[in-house]
Amino acid sequence: MSLQKHPLGEFDLIHRFFKMESDRMLARDANSIQLGIGDDCALLMPDAHEEIAITTDMLVEGRHFIAGANPAALGHKALAVNLSDLAAMGAKPLGFTLAIALPESDPAWLEAFSNGLFQLAKEHQCPLIGGDTTAGPLNICITAFGAIPKDQAIKRSGACVGDDIWVSGTVGDARLTLAALRHELVLTPEELQAVEARMHQPNPRVQLGIQLRAFASAALDISDGLLGDLSHILQASQKSALVYLDRIPKSATLLKKDALIQNQYAACGGDDYELCFTVSPTHRQAILEISQNLNLALSSIGSIKALDSEIPEITLIDTDGQILNEEQAAGLLKSFDHFA
Amino acid sequence: MSLQKHPLGEFDLIHRFFKMESDRMLARDANSIQLGIGDDCALLMPDAHEEIAITTDMLVEGRHFIAGANPAALGHKALAVNLSDLAAMGAKPLGFTLAIALPESDPAWLEAFSNGLFQLAKEHQCPLIGGDTTAGPLNICITAFGAIPKDQAIKRSGACVGDDIWVSGTVGDARLTLAALRHELVLTPEELQAVEARMHQPNPRVQLGIQLRAFASAALDISDGLLGDLSHILQASQKSALVYLDRIPKSATLLKKDALIQNQYAACGGDDYELCFTVSPTHRQAILEISQNLNLALSSIGSIKALDSEIPEITLIDTDGQILNEEQAAGLLKSFDHFA
Repeated sequence: MSLQKHPLGEFDLIHRFFKMESDRMLARDANSIQLGIGDDCALLMPDAHEEIAITTDMLVEGRHFIAGANPAALGHKALAVNLSDLAAMGAKPLGFTLAIALPESDPAWLEAFSNGLFQLAKEHQCPLIGGDTTAGPLNICITAFGAIPKDQAIKRSGACVGDDIWVSGTVGDARLTLAALRHELVLTPEELQAVEARMHQPNPRVQLGIQLRAFASAALDISDGLLGDLSHILQASQKSALVYLDRIPKSATLLKKDALIQNQYAACGGDDYELCFTVSPTHRQAILEISQNLNLALSSIGSIKALDSEIPEITLIDTDGQILNEEQAAGLLKSFDHFA
Repeated sequence: MSLQKHPLGEFDLIHRFFKMESDRMLARDANSIQLGIGDDCALLMPDAHEEIAITTDMLVEGRHFIAGANPAALGHKALAVNLSDLAAMGAKPLGFTLAIALPESDPAWLEAFSNGLFQLAKEHQCPLIGGDTTAGPLNICITAFGAIPKDQAIKRSGACVGDDIWVSGTVGDARLTLAALRHELVLTPEELQAVEARMHQPNPRVQLGIQLRAFASAALDISDGLLGDLSHILQASQKSALVYLDRIPKSATLLKKDALIQNQYAACGGDDYELCFTVSPTHRQAILEISQNLNLALSSIGSIKALDSEIPEITLIDTDGQILNEEQAAGLLKSFDHFA
């Protein structure tokens, strides 16, 4: 009985398509990957004294992206959000698995999706090492792996009293794009063009994360909104924080909007995938040098404080140097509605 | 501004529910897991000279299980299919991530699902170390990690001419259960009870995989049907095979059905998650000892042959010792329709 009598299903073709690009990358950047797609498991051999960072994100149509979303952008974003989590720990990408459910086998969609996916994968020498393809409502689940020298992972729990709080790049543009798509406000075509990539094709701050290993006491990536995400550091570190609203870095496009929009979107808008991290003031010069080397703005937005009560708190300072009261802070926060 | 003003969504509750059990397991079986749920990534530190085996499987409602499937069985099966892939490489389970999309937050469903999931996880000291929960059509994606001493992974590509081909347990009962559910044939309630766990709660052969490291030249788990899966070993090893249909191990329930059903279901039915592996005849005694130690039947069903042409082939021998011709083999194979 010849084995060629086994018919190849459409999903075998998808698998073969992904496998080809995966094999090419593994041939070029073997690093720690001992075995890629095609066996029961992939095999990964970290260097001695390295820890493996592992993160997983599932993207669902209608919740994390709209039906009919650009497949190339989707391929980029599905990997980017995972690389961003690796960056937040200071991990160097090693590889990723992709499990995908597809309602139909559309070669044009798949080609665009994998182009977006592999372009980012190559940029970070992060090969696809395994996966699963199945029929079903569109669902993309990536698990990514990174390497960190032992005991150098940047956890959320290490923030110390007196540390500066830093934010990379600018925040709020992904929320500004969402607002335009939802017709909550109007952007000119030029403005939309200037900001929309922040929502659709976020740039994971992988090199920044790696360089921060030596300096940051705590870090995470900003996916749900700066203040909400900062609160995770405060909870894990059992600290409070002081944040100056006008120091939160905003793009030129966002700075043209009115002050409430600026503050709401920058402080609470999600999906920018910048890093928020805490560093002792003794390392300010080192952080500014990293900023120069990476050609990436790094802004100090406030500082870590001791807990006053049992509950971590964020004290917000407005442009006039005044502390926002509960009512004003609630007014700022109520705007927060992360996509979905 | 107090952080308790951030409302907790329903999915935070799910996350907390999974996290509690995860923390309990990590406190008991720390092994290689340095950091579990609650940061940007989990951290895993393998022992020196260990490789990490990685596998991922996505289960979609309507394709891999029927709507309304028993959630406890589903939790078991979602992890079992991944542990089965680890077993097929000879890997010892270290931990897993769970990404799950749920149409609604149903506490009773979640409790049953996680009971099924964690019961199997505990049996194999395999803690949940990270994940993602989101709203969406029911989709369960697990990525599992295992450890193997360097260069001891059992790959598909190592089968040698003359090796015996072995199968663990019995095969065909999952397909028999499916046939009953589809009303293709009738089982008595006692018969159904005897076989249905094979489909709904497969038992990953983890200990067998670990013990086979020293002996097996190739291995995989039988998820799509014995002959189809064996063909993956033959393709990877560039070999052919001889298989005796009556040596394929079948349960007492399946043995009561007519001969064609027996052979079709055992040779081509999927979802049994037994191991198929090849071993040099010099190790026959060792394999029989493993069988005794694990109290698990291990059956030699044929042997590995050299390639006659460029294409791996499986020669099937019927009960009378006759070689099945192409037409007979096709008649056997056409029955194959893996659930979906």
